[in-house]
Amino acid sequence: MSKLPNDPLLNISLQQLIQKIKSQAITCEEVTKIYLKRIELLNKKLHSYIYIDYEGAIKSASAIDNLISSGVDLGPLMGTPIAIKDICAVSGMPTTNGSIVKSDDLTGSEGTLVKRLKSLGCIILGKTHTVEFALGATGLNKHKGTPKNPWDIKTHRFPGGSSSGSAVAVASGLAAFAIGTDTGGSVRIPASLTGIAGLKTTKGVWPTDGIFPLSPTLDTPGPLARSLEDIKYIFNAYQSNLISEKKLMSLNGLTLAKLGSPFTDELDEEVSIAYESFCNELIKKGVNIIDLNIPEANERTKLFPSIVGSEIVSAFGETRFLNEVEKMDPVTAKRAKVGLDVRSIDYLNLKSRLKELEVMASKFFQKYDALVSPTTVMRAMKVKDCEIDAPLHDRSLLSSANTQPANLFNLCAITYPIQKYCADFGTENCLPVGFQVICEKNHDIQSIDIGLALEKEFGKPILPDITNFLS
Amino acid sequence: MSKLPNDPLLNISLQQLIQKIKSQAITCEEVTKIYLKRIELLNKKLHSYIYIDYEGAIKSASAIDNLISSGVDLGPLMGTPIAIKDICAVSGMPTTNGSIVKSDDLTGSEGTLVKRLKSLGCIILGKTHTVEFALGATGLNKHKGTPKNPWDIKTHRFPGGSSSGSAVAVASGLAAFAIGTDTGGSVRIPASLTGIAGLKTTKGVWPTDGIFPLSPTLDTPGPLARSLEDIKYIFNAYQSNLISEKKLMSLNGLTLAKLGSPFTDELDEEVSIAYESFCNELIKKGVNIIDLNIPEANERTKLFPSIVGSEIVSAFGETRFLNEVEKMDPVTAKRAKVGLDVRSIDYLNLKSRLKELEVMASKFFQKYDALVSPTTVMRAMKVKDCEIDAPLHDRSLLSSANTQPANLFNLCAITYPIQKYCADFGTENCLPVGFQVICEKNHDIQSIDIGLALEKEFGKPILPDITNFLS
Repeated sequence: MSKLPNDPLLNISLQQLIQKIKSQAITCEEVTKIYLKRIELLNKKLHSYIYIDYEGAIKSASAIDNLISSGVDLGPLMGTPIAIKDICAVSGMPTTNGSIVKSDDLTGSEGTLVKRLKSLGCIILGKTHTVEFALGATGLNKHKGTPKNPWDIKTHRFPGGSSSGSAVAVASGLAAFAIGTDTGGSVRIPASLTGIAGLKTTKGVWPTDGIFPLSPTLDTPGPLARSLEDIKYIFNAYQSNLISEKKLMSLNGLTLAKLGSPFTDELDEEVSIAYESFCNELIKKGVNIIDLNIPEANERTKLFPSIVGSEIVSAFGETRFLNEVEKMDPVTAKRAKVGLDVRSIDYLNLKSRLKELEVMASKFFQKYDALVSPTTVMRAMKVKDCEIDAPLHDRSLLSSANTQPANLFNLCAITYPIQKYCADFGTENCLPVGFQVICEKNHDIQSIDIGLALEKEFGKPILPDITNFLS
Repeated sequence: MSKLPNDPLLNISLQQLIQKIKSQAITCEEVTKIYLKRIELLNKKLHSYIYIDYEGAIKSASAIDNLISSGVDLGPLMGTPIAIKDICAVSGMPTTNGSIVKSDDLTGSEGTLVKRLKSLGCIILGKTHTVEFALGATGLNKHKGTPKNPWDIKTHRFPGGSSSGSAVAVASGLAAFAIGTDTGGSVRIPASLTGIAGLKTTKGVWPTDGIFPLSPTLDTPGPLARSLEDIKYIFNAYQSNLISEKKLMSLNGLTLAKLGSPFTDELDEEVSIAYESFCNELIKKGVNIIDLNIPEANERTKLFPSIVGSEIVSAFGETRFLNEVEKMDPVTAKRAKVGLDVRSIDYLNLKSRLKELEVMASKFFQKYDALVSPTTVMRAMKVKDCEIDAPLHDRSLLSSANTQPANLFNLCAITYPIQKYCADFGTENCLPVGFQVICEKNHDIQSIDIGLALEKEFGKPILPDITNFLS
């Protein structure tokens, strides 16, 4: 077996990688080929990509190199090889939406988000696995396969979902960053469970055209990346924000609401240990930590299934849905079918309730800079324990318990890994744990800045040793 | 019985009336008292106002006079005595929404529209009758009473609805203009059937807060006034548009789509005669008239009941609705109850269909300056023929057949009276007929300008002889 080339982001930031490409210390084509080689060697084990565009990526990379030689600058992301979740259309690549049911017409043609990333000079390496129709948080996918969490070489553990392949690609050095989508946690959950950084944008900040319409009410795209530093760099580049030189946010003096029930009702012991320890570390750094319970977060079990179920069945149309549902993953099918029996007045009342919850949640930010919680209640579980008839299936469905509220309350959030504070850290049993920082609607930059302040203080995400997969 | 003072707008425009007030040729208080006297003498016969604020109106008028004396100018509408439909909240006045069911909490407190009119110096004379919850186009209201169409002194004919009282107030000189709302034609229908001018604004152009939420998807407020000239004056004042001196729109060279089926499928003979004759007159003035059928307009019978039914039941909440429905007007109750049995996926599909229809309709305006039709298929019918068990009840429900499409296609429209072109014009049998001019989304000014061009060419609306009601 040929040798695995080093991860281009090993020990450097995305910004530093781009500087190397733009200064022609390394060509974009060389970097792209490194990623493609790593994908070639690792994807069969990790099952991260569902489609790889070897030729197209090299061709685009070469064109970017020519532009650089000609003195053309497409901005901060020029030459970045990236991965796109397979519920987003990319011209010339198939869209499966993680399903054997044909549904690419519902996704539509390449949308604003992908077009914008291309125009900024990103190279699309390929498309990454997703839970079918992005309707699921574990990462399990019966028909298209479940990506492997790179933190456990021996066991098949889930990577979280639905942006499962995107998280595995970033954690394993198979893309410089990846695009996911988050309807109930689908960026944050896999980022948390694979130990990387992720951003759930506020609804409307990033466009959703050309993306499978799981729930037009709740869908939000977002980046998964190797660090909060990279997330900030990507987000600012996408928004055309000026990269300011202003001082980093200081942890000292921040006021964070430490979410208790229901966010802590179902925690794994090690998640609880890491969360409590990390909050204590924050207090030592001058953060004001105030306990807060939000009982309204429990309403997710009433709101999410009916709203999302109605909207996905509506996207298909009833006849088509009923014709295809038997071919769907049984977990997806069960969740989507909820939408067949919701009445319009109940749907409208749930939508009205979302508006009330948004107002309620907005008031927290008069007192707190952010709300914090464990991103997921568990660490990565074994896939075989989570199948639809397996003993821990119901427990696995709690993977979105702590993330759905930010979607339902119309907020933004990041996740930052904190497994260093687990009791078993340093042993081979230790798996990633995410710390969620939830901020006010349209304060995406604030959630990133708080995450970045954590990263500057407590270190960048630790990565799994991928070379093990080759032995 | 005391003498009826002359209508302040007799032979003059709203602009001219305001000029008289601002130049102190007459005080605002005097004008307000004239309207209040006319209301006092005529309202028992006409049943236009449900609430009259004698004291408050005089107090406000006096304050406006003092401002004028002090050299303060609140703009083009300063000192205009107006009427507000009783589904809009006005501070200090009760809101019944045309119902004996208490529902003022659903309407909320005084909204942006009324506040803005007050801040422009309008005097609120009182609130006008409406169909219960604005859900009906005939004007019939079992519990609160049906206003009388002022065109027939002997028979109780409906004025159209749901802004029934507003239309009667304007046609009878009981307000300088009135505010109505239009969810399926509720401004245009009563304006048409009482022979005045009305504007259905594009969704979003005028705010709907503080107005009963019959259908947040379709509700649009709009003015009813004595002429298109006044409508333009009111609309420009509300929008703070500069009153331009530019040349009036010319009929010569306009291209109008003359709507045929289904808009002409059910016309009364006299409506048909007036429509055809008037279109022939337009051709003589250099208008290009092109026949157009829009079969999609038939979809209103599927779209309107489910969307509006769902949204009104949702506004109440199911339990409250079921507790109150027996107290509602049986016609309203029947229509609202449709909402109890709609599924969310059907509601969402109908909403998606609205988006498709909006796109479809927008394409017409690449070819036509406007679409035209009779505003209603009939002239004012006898109330006793239209009750729920009466022989012509089903026919009366067609009163919104020609207006709903503009709501469903997200367009704007005006109505202009054309009964001069009826065969029976000049006899006491002649009743008003409206000519509807439908324009592209957000081209409200264009619909007004075309209406104004008609008015300049063919004359201002003719008014009924109200003095007959005193004899």
